Parts: sequence; C-alpha cells; structure tokens
Amino acid sequence: MRRYQERVDAALARFLPPTEQTPTQLHDAMHYAVLGGGKRIRPVLAYATAECLGANLDDVDAAACALELIHCYSLVHDDLPSMDNDDLRRGRPTCHKVYGDAMALLAGDALQCFAIEILSKGDYNEAQSSARLKMIATISSASGSTGMAGGQAIDLAAVGQHLTIEQLEQMHRLKTGALIEASITVGALAANCDAASMKPLQDYAQCIGLAFQIRDDLLDIEADTETLGKPQGSDQEQDKPTYPSLLGLSGAKNMAQQMHDHALRALQPLGDDVDPLRLLSSYIVERTH
Amino acid sequence: MRRYQERVDAALARFLPPTEQTPTQLHDAMHYAVLGGGKRIRPVLAYATAECLGANLDDVDAAACALELIHCYSLVHDDLPSMDNDDLRRGRPTCHKVYGDAMALLAGDALQCFAIEILSKGDYNEAQSSARLKMIATISSASGSTGMAGGQAIDLAAVGQHLTIEQLEQMHRLKTGALIEASITVGALAANCDAASMKPLQDYAQCIGLAFQIRDDLLDIEADTETLGKPQGSDQEQDKPTYPSLLGLSGAKNMAQQMHDHALRALQPLGDDVDPLRLLSSYIVERTH
Repeated sequence: MRRYQERVDAALARFLPPTEQTPTQLHDAMHYAVLGGGKRIRPVLAYATAECLGANLDDVDAAACALELIHCYSLVHDDLPSMDNDDLRRGRPTCHKVYGDAMALLAGDALQCFAIEILSKGDYNEAQSSARLKMIATISSASGSTGMAGGQAIDLAAVGQHLTIEQLEQMHRLKTGALIEASITVGALAANCDAASMKPLQDYAQCIGLAFQIRDDLLDIEADTETLGKPQGSDQEQDKPTYPSLLGLSGAKNMAQQMHDHALRALQPLGDDVDPLRLLSSYIVERTH
Repeated sequence: MRRYQERVDAALARFLPPTEQTPTQLHDAMHYAVLGGGKRIRPVLAYATAECLGANLDDVDAAACALELIHCYSLVHDDLPSMDNDDLRRGRPTCHKVYGDAMALLAGDALQCFAIEILSKGDYNEAQSSARLKMIATISSASGSTGMAGGQAIDLAAVGQHLTIEQLEQMHRLKTGALIEASITVGALAANCDAASMKPLQDYAQCIGLAFQIRDDLLDIEADTETLGKPQGSDQEQDKPTYPSLLGLSGAKNMAQQMHDHALRALQPLGDDVDPLRLLSSYIVERTH
C-alpha cells in the first residue's frame, strides 16, 4: 500500500498547478486540500487492480490522481458550514477554516474540474483516447447525481430520519461505493481488462465499498479523534443513520466481515494474480482510521 | 439565434436525469438551475461555429449542453451566500433560495460533473473518441483554476480593491472569456476544423469574450432589474471593479465597440461562411439583457 500511496502523492504534487501561479490563493487552497495526507484508498485500489492485471503503472497515474482529486473536492464541500460544518479533517483545520468559505467552495469546484483536465489533456493515439474517454465516463458517472453527489443529497435528507437497512445501503452505494467501484474499474481499463474479468472485479468492488462504509461508521464510534483526524462521534451528534445505529455494534461488525467474505468469493475466478486485492479487502475491514 | 436556443433547450431537457429519478430533490434543483431560461450564448456560439464550418449539429448537442451546464453550475455557486449572496437570477429566486444552501451546492457540483458525463458517455469509434477527448480537455481547462474558477477567485480577492485595466482584463479573460473561447473551440472541433481556421476563430473568440463582459458591466448600470432578471446595480453595491468604473461609461462603450471591430477583422480570412459569427458579435455588444 505504501508504495502506491507514495506514488500517487508524488503524481499529485507533479500535476497540481504550482502555488506561485495566479491565482495563488486558490492554488494554495487546492494544495492544502489535496496534499494533507489521507489514506489514498481510491488510488491504491486503482493501482493495485491495474498492476494485478499487468498494466504499466505510468498509464494509471492520471486516473489515480483524478480519483483522489474527486474525493478531496467532495471532502472540502462536505465540510462547509452549509453541509456538515466540520472544523477538523485529516488532523488539520478544514479548508474553509483556513481559506474562508468562498475560497474553499472555489477550490472544491476547481479540484473537480482539474481531475477531468489531467485525464483529458495530452497527445494520445486513438486507442489511448478511447481508454481515457471510458475512464472519464466511469469517474464522472460515479461522482454525479446518480453517484457520489446523489448519495450526499440522500444523506442530507436522511438526517434525523429513520432509514431501513436497504435505504442506508442505497445511500452508501452512491455516496462512497460508486467512487470505490470506479477506482477498480479504471484500474481494469488501464490494463485493457476483458469483460470476463471485469465482472468479478466489479462484484468485489461492490462488497469492499460497502465494507469500507461500515468500517467508517464503526470507527466514528470506536476510535478517538486524534487517530481519526476528524471529530469522533460526529455521526451520532448529527443524528445520522449508520450501520451500528441500525444493526448494533456486533451486527455491523458481522456485516463488514460478511462483505469481506463475499469480496474474496468474487475474486475466486481470477486466481493468485489478484492476491493484493484480497489483502486490500482485509485492510478495509480491519483499518483503525 | 432562436433556432440554436431552442435546440439546446430541447437537448438539455432530454439529457438531464428525470426529476422522478432518485434523488428527486437533487434532480429537481438541477432542472431548476438549468431549464429556467437564459441566453444560452455559449451553446449558440458552439452551434454557430460548427454550422459555419459544415458540421452536423447532431455532433454538437452534447458539447453545447456541456458548456451551458458548466455555466449554470457556476451561476448556482456564484449566487450562494458565501459568494455573491444573490436572491434573483433569470427573473426567479436563485437555486439556494428555493432548495437551501446545501442542496444548491450539491446541484452545482452535480451539474459540473454531468457536463462531463454527457460528453464522455456513449459508444464511439476511435476517431470520435479523440474529438470528444479534445472537447473535454478544452472545456475542463476553461473551467478550472486557470479559467473560470480562477477568474472567480481573482474577482473575490478584488472586491474593494483598485485594479488596473490590465488586471481587470486578466480577471475577465479567465472568468467569462475562457468558457466563451471554449465554446468557439468545441464548435470548431465538432467540424474537424484545421489549424489554419482555428487561429482566426480563437482571435475572434477572445474579442467577443471581452466585449461580452464589458456589455455585462454596462447593463448592470443602464438596464433595470426586470429586464436583467437579476438585481441592477449589484456591481456598484458590492464595490466590484468594472470597465465603466475604470473607463467611464463612454470609455467602456468605446472599448466594447473596438472589441467588436477587432472580432470582425479576425474573421476576414474566413470569408462569407462565417457571417453568422459576425452577427453574433453585433448581438453581444448591442444586447439589452
């Protein structure tokens, strides 16, 4: 994991417009929002999938960065006062606490746009263009109103409401699951993966996407603020429906374990080549922040 | 113009996810922000350029819609309380006044994303993929931190400051000019325009982009709120630097006329085929809202 994390961090620093470039304050805010740590789970999944399938990692850098940029923009907007109004993220003040609400709004907007820019710019032959276009379609449909942004809208409407487990699952499939699935898909696209391998990978992706969210809900209860880098207990404080609130602590833990088991089962047809993906699934259900 | 406006309105209504689709409130807010009128100047420029150069308009619809979706998202975010805090847009309450700040933020985010989604999704042969990718690169670099969002960041920092005419011009080249230029470029890309014709078109685009902004500044002073569909005099009230504030009313009018003259001169090498673009330049300096 660390190898992929370091790789995406280097690529992000290389791609981002330098902070000396006008408008400097906006570029500062973009750097602050992106380069301040984070687990880089989406790029890690994209790199790991691509490498398991034999791709050259140079062909994955832009997509890995795009995934992380979309994730970072969503965090910046999510933390704004009109949304979750959070002060702390990745152990530091949130972007709007440092740069003001308006600049943070613009930084988020510009990061979303920049994700697409680095995937689309450059001189490509027609075969490469076709793969790039598919990556852009994958990432943009995972981020929009029927993906991540849609999940946030459902989340917003759900505060203080009672959701069924099915409704909670649908919300998270959109809010976090869609971009995690997209991470696996773009990794596979970078490796020119055939349809026969794509199907088990997507099943795997759905399971770990859900497991990731359940673990997130558990950590909000069980970890402390310092380890999390964001305020512990904020779901409960904001009266958000979560897996532990619906299933209890042990019920939620069981469900995460089930998702991990399903993920492993989905990978069976792909043999030993995808062992790194098996390890990532373990990491996702066991992580402590 | 009306033919193109009706064409893009129909295409937008066709592309947008139906309001009955989950999450319904988010889709409602997206429809409200996009389908509430507007001059559709960017799609009109893209269609007109493409048609002058012999393209089939069916190949321009997605790009024309993408340009308008990017413009609409920027208006929704610009109107938010943390930005310009405007209550009125296109003669109706602004998006956040109807749907709340959080939902308006998400609607803007989702519209930006949706612009890219409709340009990237679909089955294309490799030549078409290549053109699509160039359109996406054009639109995304015109919208980000070195384009529209960057111009807004400069605008934000400029409130109450004295700008030179060069600084004002740089701000507007980014804030409105970049996306207007992109409109001409994607129209030309849809027509497989050669480099020899691209250069005069881009010169033309730069001139009308600036003329458009000067006219906007003049209208903020000279038109009434009802005609504008947004509050008259808001630049002055917010102490924003404008062309009339730097050059006086007649100085600003002269400059708009000069830009129109330059635009016509730029088009000379392209002959009669581009007469519709000449008419659009006149419209831009003469429009009353």
